[in-house]
Amino acid sequence: MKTETFNEIIENILNKNPLVHCITNYVTVNDCANALLACGASPIMADDEDEVEEITTLCSALNINIGTLNKRTIGSMLKAGKRANELNHPVILDPVGAGASSLRTSTALKLISEIKMSVIRGNMSEIIAIANGYGSTQGVDANVEDNVSEQNLSESVDFVKKLSLKLNSVIVATGEIDIVANSKNAYTIRNGVPMMSRITGSGCMLSALIAAYCGANPSRIFEATAASVAMLGICGERAYKRVMETNGGNGLFRAYLIDEISKMNTPTLIGGLKIELE
Amino acid sequence: MKTETFNEIIENILNKNPLVHCITNYVTVNDCANALLACGASPIMADDEDEVEEITTLCSALNINIGTLNKRTIGSMLKAGKRANELNHPVILDPVGAGASSLRTSTALKLISEIKMSVIRGNMSEIIAIANGYGSTQGVDANVEDNVSEQNLSESVDFVKKLSLKLNSVIVATGEIDIVANSKNAYTIRNGVPMMSRITGSGCMLSALIAAYCGANPSRIFEATAASVAMLGICGERAYKRVMETNGGNGLFRAYLIDEISKMNTPTLIGGLKIELE
Amino acid sequence: MKTETFNEIIENILNKNPLVHCITNYVTVNDCANALLACGASPIMADDEDEVEEITTLCSALNINIGTLNKRTIGSMLKAGKRANELNHPVILDPVGAGASSLRTSTALKLISEIKMSVIRGNMSEIIAIANGYGSTQGVDANVEDNVSEQNLSESVDFVKKLSLKLNSVIVATGEIDIVANSKNAYTIRNGVPMMSRITGSGCMLSALIAAYCGANPSRIFEATAASVAMLGICGERAYKRVMETNGGNGLFRAYLIDEISKMNTPTLIGGLKIELE
Repeated sequence: MKTETFNEIIENILNKNPLVHCITNYVTVNDCANALLACGASPIMADDEDEVEEITTLCSALNINIGTLNKRTIGSMLKAGKRANELNHPVILDPVGAGASSLRTSTALKLISEIKMSVIRGNMSEIIAIANGYGSTQGVDANVEDNVSEQNLSESVDFVKKLSLKLNSVIVATGEIDIVANSKNAYTIRNGVPMMSRITGSGCMLSALIAAYCGANPSRIFEATAASVAMLGICGERAYKRVMETNGGNGLFRAYLIDEISKMNTPTLIGGLKIELE
Repeated sequence: MKTETFNEIIENILNKNPLVHCITNYVTVNDCANALLACGASPIMADDEDEVEEITTLCSALNINIGTLNKRTIGSMLKAGKRANELNHPVILDPVGAGASSLRTSTALKLISEIKMSVIRGNMSEIIAIANGYGSTQGVDANVEDNVSEQNLSESVDFVKKLSLKLNSVIVATGEIDIVANSKNAYTIRNGVPMMSRITGSGCMLSALIAAYCGANPSRIFEATAASVAMLGICGERAYKRVMETNGGNGLFRAYLIDEISKMNTPTLIGGLKIELE
Repeated sequence: MKTETFNEIIENILNKNPLVHCITNYVTVNDCANALLACGASPIMADDEDEVEEITTLCSALNINIGTLNKRTIGSMLKAGKRANELNHPVILDPVGAGASSLRTSTALKLISEIKMSVIRGNMSEIIAIANGYGSTQGVDANVEDNVSEQNLSESVDFVKKLSLKLNSVIVATGEIDIVANSKNAYTIRNGVPMMSRITGSGCMLSALIAAYCGANPSRIFEATAASVAMLGICGERAYKRVMETNGGNGLFRAYLIDEISKMNTPTLIGGLKIELE
């Protein structure tokens, strides 16, 4: 990706201040709201079936996260998603825990079948659960493992690209190495630190940030998604450095991560990128 | 307001340790609980229709916030509010998102029509939505804008006073300048910093703090409300200063804001006040 | 308790990385998730009746907390608890607010009567409410007070032991002095600082940590529970020291508390213990 593209993606966030509708879990909802505000967007959390269509109409993007799924809000997710599709707003799905229960797997699949998702973001286990559940006759490549590493990177990238083709969505599989793929291309991103997986909300915040970036850059979903992933990874690296300097731990890391999102700017982003187009 | 009045209001919080019943949203509920504890009050969050009357009976004040409104809890809000009214406990309404959906606007109006609200606190857009919805034949003064500034202050103050008269509640409209009005008088408060609007929960925490201050000072609702608004603004100023000194951002600001509430005392409050009676 | 026992308990957490299923309140759920991650465990929050049995099957322990009890999730608590019992997974109950409303007291009693609880943890008021509600013909000893202190320690310990015998659960009553009792023995723990009660979530985090420790040490429920209580108390002492050094307040204390959980190791734990077997 060219530096100019990153510049424009970031500028669009700051200039457009996109409003992002989140139907999300109650564990990390506060982190998602603060991450959105920190990046220059604004959050609206609303999950009642009677208002989600109106709310999503006001917004630039919709972020659906099934982290504390309950049957009351599945209808809300479907209604909001369909309305966002009508308006051509980007819709992001975070299938938290897909594979861990039938309810989660089947709900994720139902959402994907009834709503055009711009981006689906999960860890590799969740992405595999969706691929399996979607009735692929090929099954999941036996070489695809839950953790993406240098050893299985090539197979993992191929797998994510194929799933993107099948689902007609940009797919993000996060882990030690992050993969952002459409049907033809994939970015691999080596930003980030292990401590991000030792606080709750890193993944959920990333999905919310992707929604903001896509909301402000609807014609560049693939690039905007990759930029979000790299951006949060760089914030993680910078937060971790401060944790080490201040004798901190996971608690300060969480605060610093939001700090770094709010302090992010184009030079810091460009200077910190560890991204490659495969 | 006289210094003695502020002294007494603060002393009452610390001496009475008021218990505040919150029916609130799941985005900022943790911030509200921590803000209440930090100021010397205690929170109880309870929203099931089968227990809200009992819970509110134990408390000194009730804080109703519609930030993630869902139909399950509207009945709870009504029951709790009516019980609090019977007991002459102060009831505070935070009509989050009024104007953004029919459900929110109509629920806010229903709550106002069935419960005597001691205080209604929102940003100016939310306050205008309520004024419009309440069927004023005069409509909203065309000069009243969503953001209160020096340019439109006089019209804004008049508008808020009139609404206070109509609804028989103290009205708080927060923004660049905060207005706290009853039917006859208004305080304008210039404490606070813009970063408060870049974290989630500043408004919700303020409504919770107003409930605590009013719960400990039920005979001085107007003054206690103004004191809460100024207090949180001063905390914001002090937190922002520390953020600048520690190379922080929005994440540390959130932690420092709670810090400053917990460290607040009467001399700091009195010394920091930027409040005028219009 | 021998030093070797503490060593093993801590080692088991770090080696087994236990997965803990939490059905908990929306006020402190983020704190619970972060506390679990910080101690070396992993959280899954899931409360829909259709998935709780599957989810709890994947886990090593179940933590039930009634802090924002609502009727939708009572059935989920019962289903998850019964499934955990079938699998011999430790089940921890935090009866938040028992005694404050009939719904809470009766739900806590129902859960205790239908599910074998490994550990019940509350403050002394909540523990007394359960003892009263459980139909003891002896009633609560008149000398048992809501706050455990040196003056009433002996009576309090006896009371908690008797309740443990009656309910066949380890009972934890937290306060100025913490008591962890089974039917025959009791640990008294004098770790901790008052500031822990001035942030929301200290109690809820403790219950979640107990679940993690018991999940990794299912054959040593009594010792693992005592170790959790002492561990969080030591983290509180260390966090408080840092708050004093950095001119902080309740906000930083919350972040530092999670920091200290993530930085805890066996020497720090052993060196800081203020625990006695009565």
